[in-house]
Amino acid sequence: MVRGRASLGDGPIVIVGLGLIGGSLAHDLTALGQRVIGVDRPEILRAARRRRLIAAGRTTVEAAVDEGALVVLCAPPKANERLAARLLRRLPADVVVTDTGSVKAGITARARRLGARCFVAGHPMAGSEGSGLTAARAGLFRDRPWLLASDSGAEPRALGRVRALARALGARPTLIDARTHDRVMAFLSHLPQVVAWALSDAARHDPDARRALGLAGPGFRDMTRLAKSPPGLWRQILSANAPEVRHAAQAFERALRHRLRSAG
Amino acid sequence: MVRGRASLGDGPIVIVGLGLIGGSLAHDLTALGQRVIGVDRPEILRAARRRRLIAAGRTTVEAAVDEGALVVLCAPPKANERLAARLLRRLPADVVVTDTGSVKAGITARARRLGARCFVAGHPMAGSEGSGLTAARAGLFRDRPWLLASDSGAEPRALGRVRALARALGARPTLIDARTHDRVMAFLSHLPQVVAWALSDAARHDPDARRALGLAGPGFRDMTRLAKSPPGLWRQILSANAPEVRHAAQAFERALRHRLRSAG
Repeated sequence: MVRGRASLGDGPIVIVGLGLIGGSLAHDLTALGQRVIGVDRPEILRAARRRRLIAAGRTTVEAAVDEGALVVLCAPPKANERLAARLLRRLPADVVVTDTGSVKAGITARARRLGARCFVAGHPMAGSEGSGLTAARAGLFRDRPWLLASDSGAEPRALGRVRALARALGARPTLIDARTHDRVMAFLSHLPQVVAWALSDAARHDPDARRALGLAGPGFRDMTRLAKSPPGLWRQILSANAPEVRHAAQAFERALRHRLRSAG
Repeated sequence: MVRGRASLGDGPIVIVGLGLIGGSLAHDLTALGQRVIGVDRPEILRAARRRRLIAAGRTTVEAAVDEGALVVLCAPPKANERLAARLLRRLPADVVVTDTGSVKAGITARARRLGARCFVAGHPMAGSEGSGLTAARAGLFRDRPWLLASDSGAEPRALGRVRALARALGARPTLIDARTHDRVMAFLSHLPQVVAWALSDAARHDPDARRALGLAGPGFRDMTRLAKSPPGLWRQILSANAPEVRHAAQAFERALRHRLRSAG
């Protein structure tokens, strides 16, 4: 296991999008002594600087990326894909780009088509129902899997650098091909999100259950916690992985009916 | 608010079924200085005595119930209903009987038909996915609602004693009519149980998702925690509340499809 600063390279780490994921990354990397440059709107950059999460801030990714940088795209999936496509066409020497989105097939295929050997599609399995810089926290990635697409077409040097990033944060880098990733996430993450919404919706639309929400036990609370997740971000994720989510939802509905029938 | 021993009456508290709920009750009541008599199989009684949860044990409820006792039925729902029907036909003076099951319409109607003025249908909103005496723990009911059927037909003295029981354990006694209870629980407890199973089933039946279960984040873990709940007990609960669970499941499936459609 390679840990520490050296394996992360000498350049700065550019974090694009200082939300829950980007802000938490910035916190831990700055704490490790890395030079972190944040890219976001001016008011977010000011807040990140006040919290000493970043050394410097830029409002465009181009203004932030210099030779040897490691760029981590932490914007919503569609923005990441656009940014990746733009960045990967013309990059300073020795730059490595990775992303942290929840759907991997689209961005991986795009990077492969561009022949971008410096791009590694990634997905740290960490988060919460919170969102934005205010939800960022220390140690979010510790002991969590950090999935890396095995079929990004990245050269070993790029892959090694993103692996080192994950390890520096205490995460476990794990290779998986992009299609399997998306199928698996439909079952383990995307469908549970929709189910949490639907459980919450159903209870809220029933007048009796709505009045009695205060009576709910820890089971209901745990199962609807995700319903507080940001809907705009999730619409992008679900739309990017629509066929796999549909497939998982069909399997789920079959299982639900089977369970209901066998309970009589 | 009435608290403490006095309002609980002078007789012993008889706990029928020393599982998660009965065992946790026995623990807290014994700690309060109450005389607790447990009713269960001999090996469970021995374990409960070793843990000093009960003062004495009996293998039948009739052998345990004496004048002035407060009887708390903590067996699975069908057993509670049978026990209540048997007990309520011939009781020593001043005995009050309550239960702790998750479905209230059946047992409430039965008690009303028997004209049993000493029966209060109850449901402490506490628990976990654990089961059996080994899952029992201190303080399980603290700050939790303890629902009492407002239409059990109980006389005020009986209701007062069960309220005092709930308060002595730090719970919040809350009146609700049995039908509303069952409707509300379908949305807040029974449907979430079936959904947890179905989410877990769907992931386990997909070969890729099954292999990747170790990658699941806290969202999936929280949403499938209940899948570890005892299936036999839950089949009884779901079967006892089948029409309301079906109604809630239909509302849930509509909400699920709406969420899936609007995510594109």
